[in-house]
Amino acid sequence: YTRNKPDFSNRGMTLEDDIAATNEYYRIANIANIHKKPTPIQIVDVHYPKRSAAVIKEAYFKQASTTDFNGVYRGRYVDFEAKETKNKTSFPLSNIHQHQIDHMKDCHQHGGICFLIVKFTVHDETYLFPAENLFSYWEGQLNGGRKSIPYLDIKEIGIVLDFHFQARVDYAKAIDKLYF
Amino acid sequence: YTRNKPDFSNRGMTLEDDIAATNEYYRIANIANIHKKPTPIQIVDVHYPKRSAAVIKEAYFKQASTTDFNGVYRGRYVDFEAKETKNKTSFPLSNIHQHQIDHMKDCHQHGGICFLIVKFTVHDETYLFPAENLFSYWEGQLNGGRKSIPYLDIKEIGIVLDFHFQARVDYAKAIDKLYF
Ligand SMILES: [Mg+2]
Ligand SMILES: [Mg+2]
Repeated sequence: YTRNKPDFSNRGMTLEDDIAATNEYYRIANIANIHKKPTPIQIVDVHYPKRSAAVIKEAYFKQASTTDFNGVYRGRYVDFEAKETKNKTSFPLSNIHQHQIDHMKDCHQHGGICFLIVKFTVHDETYLFPAENLFSYWEGQLNGGRKSIPYLDIKEIGIVLDFHFQARVDYAKAIDKLYF
Repeated sequence: YTRNKPDFSNRGMTLEDDIAATNEYYRIANIANIHKKPTPIQIVDVHYPKRSAAVIKEAYFKQASTTDFNGVYRGRYVDFEAKETKNKTSFPLSNIHQHQIDHMKDCHQHGGICFLIVKFTVHDETYLFPAENLFSYWEGQLNGGRKSIPYLDIKEIGIVLDFHFQARVDYAKAIDKLYF
């Protein structure tokens, strides 16, 4: 198992790769400082060979307690989760975990800018969907409502993120529109 | 190698443990949402045993490109690095890496609240030291100045963080004083 190196030459990348490239551009262009949080790992066994780097010999993936990305933009705290779906007509809420909702609610309450970036791979469209709206659908689901957010609702409420050469998922412009 | 479980019963904990406990208290008491970033790991080999969790069989510690902690407090982005020193009279700048300075400068430029939490273990005193001041000492060092920040300067410029039962490193109050 070796992670594939991201291929920056074309568009056939994952949403996470596109956001990573965007974050890197934002950082270099002095637009924002946003990072992906590393995956938390539970380390069980480490060897310390003489004269070389420590080797982790046994470890497990832990459930992240927060979201994928956070950082600072125009003085504000920004926090978001990125999800792709192959679904055409809706975004299934099963893609989101309760702890991610809890985390976004908490950050939102402290004045952070929180949202979902959703990519509909079949439509090749990516949207910023505000956490405040996500919360409503989440509560609805818990109260017997539908278990997904209709694509048309995301299209209407969210902001479409156009693909640009450097800002492949140009969410900063969408933040400007929605939160400033 | 198994990580010791933190012992919350007494004060003999590391600075990181004290900050983790403080962050947990801040989260539960709805004061702030601040997390430690997981240590980035370069994964080389993973096994996927049938009917059980994936096991990482070979991995290496990567150099973190940012600081230890970030999150949101009173709507602002907060970012800091925590360091302990056994030194009595100064804080050696060799404890800080250039990439951490670069990261804090960048976040500071975007309006984030950035600082160092320094614990002098011999004095059993912990200080919040603003990044703006850290930058001056860092530049000074690069221009042939001293390679450490005098303890007395930290005492004078920084804000002492008193130990409280729940907020063991009560940095939020210090942020109030300095940045609001
Ligand atoms: Mg994700
Ligand atoms: Mg540290």
